[in-house]
Amino acid sequence: MYREEIKVLDCTIRDGGLINNYNFTDDFVKAVYAAACKAGVDIIELGKKLCESDEYTREKYGKWNFCDEDDLKAVIESHECNKPPMIAVMFDVGRVDIDGLVPADQSVVGMIRTACYIPDIDKGLDLVKRTKDLGYATTLNIMASSASIESELIGGLEEINACKEVDYLYLVDSYGAFYSEQITYYLNLYKKYAPDIEIGFHAHNNQQLAFSNTQQAIIDGVNLLDATINGIGRGAGNCNLELLLNFLKNPKFDVRPVYKVIQEHFVPLRKEIEWGFNDIYGISGHLNQHPRSAMKLRGNPDEMDNCYNFLLESTKEEASA
Amino acid sequence: MYREEIKVLDCTIRDGGLINNYNFTDDFVKAVYAAACKAGVDIIELGKKLCESDEYTREKYGKWNFCDEDDLKAVIESHECNKPPMIAVMFDVGRVDIDGLVPADQSVVGMIRTACYIPDIDKGLDLVKRTKDLGYATTLNIMASSASIESELIGGLEEINACKEVDYLYLVDSYGAFYSEQITYYLNLYKKYAPDIEIGFHAHNNQQLAFSNTQQAIIDGVNLLDATINGIGRGAGNCNLELLLNFLKNPKFDVRPVYKVIQEHFVPLRKEIEWGFNDIYGISGHLNQHPRSAMKLRGNPDEMDNCYNFLLESTKEEASA
Repeated sequence: MYREEIKVLDCTIRDGGLINNYNFTDDFVKAVYAAACKAGVDIIELGKKLCESDEYTREKYGKWNFCDEDDLKAVIESHECNKPPMIAVMFDVGRVDIDGLVPADQSVVGMIRTACYIPDIDKGLDLVKRTKDLGYATTLNIMASSASIESELIGGLEEINACKEVDYLYLVDSYGAFYSEQITYYLNLYKKYAPDIEIGFHAHNNQQLAFSNTQQAIIDGVNLLDATINGIGRGAGNCNLELLLNFLKNPKFDVRPVYKVIQEHFVPLRKEIEWGFNDIYGISGHLNQHPRSAMKLRGNPDEMDNCYNFLLESTKEEASA
Repeated sequence: MYREEIKVLDCTIRDGGLINNYNFTDDFVKAVYAAACKAGVDIIELGKKLCESDEYTREKYGKWNFCDEDDLKAVIESHECNKPPMIAVMFDVGRVDIDGLVPADQSVVGMIRTACYIPDIDKGLDLVKRTKDLGYATTLNIMASSASIESELIGGLEEINACKEVDYLYLVDSYGAFYSEQITYYLNLYKKYAPDIEIGFHAHNNQQLAFSNTQQAIIDGVNLLDATINGIGRGAGNCNLELLLNFLKNPKFDVRPVYKVIQEHFVPLRKEIEWGFNDIYGISGHLNQHPRSAMKLRGNPDEMDNCYNFLLESTKEEASA
């Protein structure tokens, strides 16, 4: 009834942090970690590992943009767990200090995920190789495939396939633009041009399709799935972890701690920050656009629900492009 | 790129009326009708056609529970339309006065949809036959198939297949419980045991799957699709008409009037009544339960977001059943 190979990666803190500048309280992060442990998720991504600077400070950008070892340890040590999830952090090409990275055997981090756009694949692969050399599990997450030129994507996939340091290659629906048939189409491209690399999938919920597209990825053979508690994440958010665990049926998962942390921590948070599907994101997803205009509109209380105006404005831009 | 045979049925007023006792203002219903006309939908269902009585009054239950000819005419005549959608109304088994129904050629109604549970299929077929005799297009909407005993469902399907008066037979995901693979499974049952009847599909959004399951029904050959503007409908609501029209690509459809009526009429309505996905409906959908307990909880401001308590309570009931 279930596929044992499937692994679930909870990226609640990393993707959720995009909407509050990683200003989660310590209690919140600890509660998410404990819930992920109890729920049996395989991997938990606790933030980004970016480079601190005078301009780019922990105070302004939140500690989970930097994921120092001590901060991570404080979370991990706050909850005893028999089979703890692997800890992952994310690298953004051009904003990391790889020379400051300790070898994996001296770190609580087990996996480093490198995110990049297609033109930056070489830079991404360089980071992947260097993190692999230090002993970390690696992923390369290609963002915005839906807006790529196919020949460039194929060239990138071939290059990635030649790089044995990539453990997982991600299909990322950054704009929430894919329908299920397109998930299949792009996964077939991935399988054809990068046949030696395991595939992961990361959805966005602009058209209420994050969960169903994740199911489609499963049907198409993907075994590493991203999800977030309550679907928290940038814009329309991600695939809801609780819905996914229900679907997967693997007895190693327990959905109850996820609903418990939603009731106790996410319901109050929803009063402070917004995420999830709405009309505006539905339009930006359909138009295969970066969510930045949609997010800007949602930040303006006087116009946040003006979906018809947003549609006209967004398609006018397209018509004149 | 698109399938010409596909017809879209807008049931905004009929399914939306379930959450406000059909107390829409005349302006609202007229605006929905005008939007459906301009958007090019094929059929619009404007309410139920139930039997008025001393106990069951228009004042208490709203005029769109009864759909008198004069009320329907007032709506239709409020907007001039070159190619107006067919008008549909719904029959509930046991609550209709078939003897009071005028022949189709004296009515503005073109289609009567009869909804019933599997044990009432004989009663449903009786109504279908009698409405067909009066000249109406007909559908039989079998509710809650997901909770049926399969042998009973199959018996019902065989009986329906023998009834030439049924124009369309509906698969209805009343509890929002189906995953895409189950849509395919049930549609295969329908096609096997009622091969002579065209199929329609009606989704609910408990697990954020109304839109994607409607896509799955399309992939599986269904050509009559229900949707509602902004996904309004009982509990977690229905498949969003605007998302569906975007997906269908047929140039006869225009999504802009739908977003316009959302901005002008649905955004204000959302401040008064609630519909759409939330954690509680996600749980009731996964458990394949009637949404009545979930709706009751959502009506209690102190407990409406207590998803963990709801999960424990709902599964305790199951364990002791």
